[in-house]
Amino acid sequence: MVTEAEKNKLLTQHLANYITDHKKEFTERVLSLRTRYITVVLEGIVQAQNASAVIRTCECLGVQDVHVVENETRYAVNKNVVKGSYKWIDLIKYRTHATSGTQQCFEALKRKGYKILVTDPAPDGKSVFEIPVTEKIALVMGNELYGITDYARAHADEKVHIPMQGFTESLNISVSAALCLQALLPRIRNSVLPWQLTETEKDFIRLQWYRKMVRRVEIMEREFLKTLVG
Amino acid sequence: MVTEAEKNKLLTQHLANYITDHKKEFTERVLSLRTRYITVVLEGIVQAQNASAVIRTCECLGVQDVHVVENETRYAVNKNVVKGSYKWIDLIKYRTHATSGTQQCFEALKRKGYKILVTDPAPDGKSVFEIPVTEKIALVMGNELYGITDYARAHADEKVHIPMQGFTESLNISVSAALCLQALLPRIRNSVLPWQLTETEKDFIRLQWYRKMVRRVEIMEREFLKTLVG
Repeated sequence: MVTEAEKNKLLTQHLANYITDHKKEFTERVLSLRTRYITVVLEGIVQAQNASAVIRTCECLGVQDVHVVENETRYAVNKNVVKGSYKWIDLIKYRTHATSGTQQCFEALKRKGYKILVTDPAPDGKSVFEIPVTEKIALVMGNELYGITDYARAHADEKVHIPMQGFTESLNISVSAALCLQALLPRIRNSVLPWQLTETEKDFIRLQWYRKMVRRVEIMEREFLKTLVG
Repeated sequence: MVTEAEKNKLLTQHLANYITDHKKEFTERVLSLRTRYITVVLEGIVQAQNASAVIRTCECLGVQDVHVVENETRYAVNKNVVKGSYKWIDLIKYRTHATSGTQQCFEALKRKGYKILVTDPAPDGKSVFEIPVTEKIALVMGNELYGITDYARAHADEKVHIPMQGFTESLNISVSAALCLQALLPRIRNSVLPWQLTETEKDFIRLQWYRKMVRRVEIMEREFLKTLVG
């Protein structure tokens, strides 16, 4: 009897035969830089291109998980903006049922030990450059027009903002997310904090990624699994 | 006989009567943080919303000048994206005539002592975090589809890139500009370099801004100038 973990390991080894060494080395580099120590939450973003630009930014900067709360809007990937980046990250969606999507999302994140930071230009919040990084961080970006919801503001651990030097009070959402991540990520990566993925997480994500890299992977996977049973 | 500088000083004092103290103090704060030590060049950006998001970012982060090279495209402000930010910055446009817009722009910037850095993902460039800031910097952002032009690449002083940690090779233009500025601006502002505007520049810009703040300013200005002649 083959366990699920063993099966996945064998499948990963099998798919690796169809991926160039260069691509495999690149995959290991990306995996070694990947983090779930910071995650981004998009709360009710209206324009798909804004959400897509944030996803692309997260992928480029090495953030693995993006949480999308669809309170009133449905998020659809804008393929011109994401540039394939959504293939390499985990997109976790929350839809409104009995409880609000934001509540579901925050509860799930808190169970996983995330400190919830909402981006809010209000001056009583903290500068993103001064936020402690000793706990895992979920960075919540609000709607383009109204910012974060009252629920999010009330249930967050902290309000954060990017210090502004001009007359204009707010930045575009993807710019704002990028600047917050660039303010936080180097501090985390240069620390002794456990910001990297665990080996188990890496194994799981590596298989996910290999599946995206190999052509006609469904057929190949089905054929390979038959050999395991036999 | 009143000189132009004296006239502007008197006019500024006159308009100041119609602006709240809070707004005047805020203006002085923005002026004290404003810089021309770094400037951004947009080379042939196709989508107005991308150019507009860069302009908004520059205003928020305190960059006074944005140069727009319109090689094939005409730039029109996208009012939903700029959020009024274009009122507070200097937008310098270059249109193609005998020579290319990029050439006109680069020659003008070099005359003013700017070092020209083109953003280019090519690995032979330097990381934006390692670029020296001892000279004034013009940061060139290329077209969304093709990047910077061959002319720009050939005539730049340096190629710069933002280090990437994922599979996706490029960031959205406004995100890229924002991350470059955030990498460079704090290093410049925390240095002893002459990054601030001169008093003459501040006087000129203050008057420009006061004109945007006072309602029916044209009539008021005309009436006031009459009193000077009399």
